[in-house]
This record gives sequence, C-alpha cells and structure tokens, in this order.
Amino acid sequence: MILEIPTSEIKTRQDTFVRNLQSQQCDAALLFNVTDIFYLTGFNFRPSERPISLIVDSRGVFSLFVPRMEVEHAQEYAVISETHDYPEYPGITHPMEYLRAVLQDKNFGALNVGLDAEGYGSAKGYAGPFITSLITFASKCSIKGLVERQRYIKSPNEIELIRESARWGNLAHSLLVKYTHTGGREMEAEGRATQEATRAMFETLGAGYRPYGSPAHAFYRGQIGPHSAFPHSQNQNAVFKKGFNVVSQAACDVWGYKSELERTMFIEEFTREQEKFFNHMHEAQEVAFRAIKPGIPASRVEEEVQQYFQDNGLTQYVKHHTGHNMGLLNHEAPFFDLGDHTLLEPGMVFSVEPGLYVEGIGAFRHSDTIVITEKGMEMITYFPRDLESLTIR
Amino acid sequence: MILEIPTSEIKTRQDTFVRNLQSQQCDAALLFNVTDIFYLTGFNFRPSERPISLIVDSRGVFSLFVPRMEVEHAQEYAVISETHDYPEYPGITHPMEYLRAVLQDKNFGALNVGLDAEGYGSAKGYAGPFITSLITFASKCSIKGLVERQRYIKSPNEIELIRESARWGNLAHSLLVKYTHTGGREMEAEGRATQEATRAMFETLGAGYRPYGSPAHAFYRGQIGPHSAFPHSQNQNAVFKKGFNVVSQAACDVWGYKSELERTMFIEEFTREQEKFFNHMHEAQEVAFRAIKPGIPASRVEEEVQQYFQDNGLTQYVKHHTGHNMGLLNHEAPFFDLGDHTLLEPGMVFSVEPGLYVEGIGAFRHSDTIVITEKGMEMITYFPRDLESLTIR
Repeated sequence: MILEIPTSEIKTRQDTFVRNLQSQQCDAALLFNVTDIFYLTGFNFRPSERPISLIVDSRGVFSLFVPRMEVEHAQEYAVISETHDYPEYPGITHPMEYLRAVLQDKNFGALNVGLDAEGYGSAKGYAGPFITSLITFASKCSIKGLVERQRYIKSPNEIELIRESARWGNLAHSLLVKYTHTGGREMEAEGRATQEATRAMFETLGAGYRPYGSPAHAFYRGQIGPHSAFPHSQNQNAVFKKGFNVVSQAACDVWGYKSELERTMFIEEFTREQEKFFNHMHEAQEVAFRAIKPGIPASRVEEEVQQYFQDNGLTQYVKHHTGHNMGLLNHEAPFFDLGDHTLLEPGMVFSVEPGLYVEGIGAFRHSDTIVITEKGMEMITYFPRDLESLTIR
Repeated sequence: MILEIPTSEIKTRQDTFVRNLQSQQCDAALLFNVTDIFYLTGFNFRPSERPISLIVDSRGVFSLFVPRMEVEHAQEYAVISETHDYPEYPGITHPMEYLRAVLQDKNFGALNVGLDAEGYGSAKGYAGPFITSLITFASKCSIKGLVERQRYIKSPNEIELIRESARWGNLAHSLLVKYTHTGGREMEAEGRATQEATRAMFETLGAGYRPYGSPAHAFYRGQIGPHSAFPHSQNQNAVFKKGFNVVSQAACDVWGYKSELERTMFIEEFTREQEKFFNHMHEAQEVAFRAIKPGIPASRVEEEVQQYFQDNGLTQYVKHHTGHNMGLLNHEAPFFDLGDHTLLEPGMVFSVEPGLYVEGIGAFRHSDTIVITEKGMEMITYFPRDLESLTIR
C-alpha cells in the first residue's frame, strides 16, 4: 500500500507556486522554511546546523542547495532538477558564500527575488550572515506565508493521508483507554498504546508506509486530574485516580500529514459538577460543528462558540480559541479565532476543540479533525464523544 | 529520585545572563528563543502559533509574556517574578500590541535593548509585525547567540542529567540489538526497544522523572544496508538482511537534556571490505579521542581526523564533520569542524562521530557523547565499540 503524494501532484504544487510568485511580481524565489520545502519538493530531511534552501530561478527551475552529506539523498527523493552543495557548516568557507555564488550564476542580481526569510534560521547552533547582505538583488520582496497559504486547502490526496492518520490515531486512542486504570501511570498507558498501535500499523500497511514523523501514538501529556487545568501542560507521569477527569491526545504521521483526536474522559466515576462542564464542552463543540460551512469567516465559528459560553456563564473558564488548521504541521493557520477573518473553503482541515478549564477539577476538551466540504463539514476523526463511552470503568 | 536543574541554578543562570547583557552595554532584553527561555526560567512549554517571550527589565527582573492559556502554567513552573498575558492569537488585538504596552510600561523606549530576534518566529501559523516596528528603543542590539554561548559549558548538574540520559539510551540500544534479526523490520525492533526501555525507566526513576522530550528510545531511521549511505536518511521500515551494515541511534531526554549513542553493526556477518571500513571508522574515532583536550580549537580535532582519512585514501567517503555540542538540543554549537575555532573548555559536551559513506555498502559511523575535562576528555556513553560485540548473530 503506497501512502504518499504522487510526483505529479508535487509538480502541480510547483506550477501553482510559480504562478503565485508571478502574481507577486517576483522573477525568482529563495525559500528556507523546512515545511514549505518538503511541500514543494517531497524532500523530507532532518533540519540541523547545516543550511538547506530551495531555489526557484527565473526559468521556473527548482533546485536545492544542500550540504555535501545530503546531495544523494536529495537527488533520490526530491522532485527537483538540480542540486547545489557546499562541503560543511561552518566549514572553511561559510555556506552562505556558496549560496551567493549559486545565485550569482543564476543571475539573481538582476531579478526581483521573493524570500521567505533573509537567511537560514535554525536554532541548532547555526550562525551566519543574511544572504541579502552578501548579494544585492534588483529588488526583493517578502513571500513569507505564500506557500503556507497555498497549503490551506488540501487536495483529495492530502485528505486521504489525513484520514489514514485519523484511522491509526483512533486505534492508538482505543488502546490508550484500554491501558488506563486507577492506580496506573500515564507513561505506562501511553507506551503500551503507542507501541501496539505502531506495530499493528506497520503490519497492516507494510513497507509502503513512511511516517515522516511519528507513527500512531496516544498520550495525556500531563493532563490528568486537576493538573489538566493547564491547557498545554507537559508530561508528569502522573497516577490515574478514581474520579479524575483526563484529557487524551492521539495522532499519527502519514507521509508527514497529521490529524488530531482528543477526548475528555473520567476514571471510573464523575461528579455532577464534572458532568455539567462535560456537557457544556460537548454542546460547545456541537455549536461549532453546526456553524462551520464554506464562505463564512473563520471568526464566525469562534463567535458562535463564545456566545454559547457567555450565555451559560462559562467565559471565565475559557482559555483559548476553538481550533486551528493542520496538515504537515500540527498547528497551522487559519484559526477559529475572533481575529481571523479568513473565509472558509472546501478542503480546509481544522481541529474543533473548544475547552473549559476549571481550577481544582481540570480540563474539559474534545478535539476532532474536520474537513470543510461544499455544503458544510465532515468529521475525519470518529472516536465516540459521549459521556458514557468516555467513562473508563 | 528528583532529576532536574534546581531553582538556585536557574537563578545563577539569570545572574550570569544579566552580567553578559551588561557587558554588551544592554540595559534590558527581550528573548523569543524557546530553548533559551527554558534554560533561563525552567519553563518548558509547547511552542505554537501563540507568541511567548522572556522580558528582562532594567532592574534585572525576569518576566514572561504568555497567552492567557499559559498564565497559571508559567506561574507554577517558571522561575520568574511576573507574568504578562494577552487573550489569544491572532485575537482582536494582536499579541505584539500587548507586548508593546508591557515594554512601554517598563520604559523600554528609553533603554538600550538586547534582542535575540526582531519578533516571534514560529512556523506554526503565526504572522505578525516585528516588535521593533511597534516601539522605538533608545537603541537596540542583537544578542542572538548570547544565551547559546552561555549554554556551551555544562554545570555538574547538567552533566549528571546527560549521564542519566546516556544510561537509559544504553538500555534502549541494548534492547534494539536484542530485537534486530534477519528478516525483521526496522520499526518493529525500534518500537519494542523503545517501549521496554521507557517502561523500565519510569519504573526505576519513579515520578521524579520528567522527560521534557522523549523518554529512552532507539532507532535506525532508515540507515539499514546500502540505504545507510545517506547520512541523514529517514525511516524506511526496511527489512534487515544478512550481511547488511546498519547504523543505530539511541537517545533519551532527561528534563530536556540529551545524549547521543550510535553504532555501526552487522547483521550476522560482514565482508572483508565492510571490516576494513569499520576499522578505519573506529580508528578515526580513536584519533579524535586522543586529540580532544581543553585549550585547543575545536577545528584541531577535525584536522586530525581529516588527516587520518587523507593518509588512508578515504576522503572521498567523508560527508560531514566529526561532531557537535549538545545539551538541550541534539545539535548545538560549537562543532568539531575545520571552520570552528572555538577553544575547548572543561564542561563542554560533544558528539564524536567521524563517518564513512560507501555507495552500495552503506554507512560506517559510531557516535559517542563525551565531556571535556581538565586534562582531556571522558566518555559519557559506554556501549561496546568493537566489531565482535557489534555483529548481531
């Protein structure tokens, strides 16, 4: 079973990018963003101290500038015409000097060049000059966000990979529930669920599966009992206690594509107060589902959810917006947020996850992955959302 | 068992940072780098579309600027005096406007401000103006790299955490070897080794262990047989075949600190040619070990290794430098590289991993983690390095 974006689609992406570039009056482009380079070339690499960049010249030829160690790797996997390389970073001559020479050869000095950054920006020990300090272009413009916007709307192939991700995330989540019990520890349940789901995944999909990230996994990241009131808490290796509410997360990378599944669950039992917050969270998610459709601004969804919370006197428990786009990254723009007026379009993939955070009790948040359709939306994740199914006995 | 950097040491780091800042003639600072913020405050958070920054005002007071959802989390875990927050990103008012107001309150307009970047730089859907376009400081200077350089030399506590990392990396690696066999698949061996090592680790260390990253894990990332000739190849879920050479990697995060262990191994048997390359790689690593001592430039180590390769006619098989510093990131500066003349000092922690890459056969590379001592160096990783031990039968 082959799970990947076909070369023909990568080439279509490149054509679209060149058209978008031209509409910005740019003759050529230089990109450093790792995700965008993967999106436009299919080359999945490990970012390090060594700069990598994508060059699109004035003839529309795509080439990669890579360290010596990645030349054959890029030639084998990237949908490009050429590679240019430098020996090593920092090296005797700085890589940016090599890049300058490549750009000069390609006559960039006479062009209007679109850049997503002024230079390479890894935090992993890299230091170096802006490329714009080494070569003067006829003119330059920032194209930061140009590929990101191209990535907003997913193709049928991309949606298939996201669905595949959700399928295995669902298995990991089922196993997480299976291994969660009073007195048990977070990492034990996570480890067993992740390992079993990963194994089943590889045995099912065979050698055609490339994660380009992490295979099926499920975890709590510290959102256990009252500590879950920190929406982005970190792993505590906490003990599950009877009556705790917990918030799970399951995900899976399939050729780099992601989905998001989160559930609020109870260990054995819950109080009436926990039930009340659960039901409001559940209903807020329903409010979002009913609101989502193409043609409206993303902010409209958030307005409806916030109105529900306000009508029910819950605003004090709200700490974040309702959702985010996703694809090659787990969080991408646009957002279901009061300040994001991007119009929703078919093919956009969002998380829907309005949350309530109650000090002393913890978090109430489901997250589902949905895709905008011609008429409204469709669920991609499908784990049960109701109270009874989510009480772990 | 408590495995963490104590608050007193975080405060010492802050004092050192303020002194370094003053020596740059800066009155105050604004930092966006996630790793540096963790280093200076102990606050480990999940970077997202929502900006977070560390503010050091002219009185030397450390405060964090965070989204609403992280306020309590920061107050609980960060060694800081204050938090400042904004509702959400993008929000109705952009977070950078809130940050401007905080900086104005702190009189930054009258100060010489050190910045590690002109603004927040996440790729996860964030867009926004440079903070320097919203507020004018009396003057500003780039302090990019200032905390990174402070992180070069590890304290005894940091080295203890790196040793703890190596201990569990060693277990994961032992298990990886145990589950690697002819006809088996990469991910199967990796998954079992990782899961078992992780479980043993949590059972041994108890609730005082916080990974702030990934617990013990071991993997091949596609470096199996001839495909290993790509030094940074990605997971292929490949099948182990008799006579293949493979390159492993084991690691483990302990309160964010890392170590690196890699071994070239053979599946059941090896040819005389494989043995020849293995022995040269082994000897090149010995050359590096003998060269490493405080007071010499990092480049000297690389020169010795390259000389060895040249003397033995192997330069064509070399694709990268000999090693890199590590700590909170898996790759950090400085580097054992011809162009890096940083003087070695006691407390620096490096990988030592000269490699040979032979088309049609694959990779030959061990990686060990070492710490520079007063007299020379000391191994932190300790898995056997010899041919006999590394032939998996």
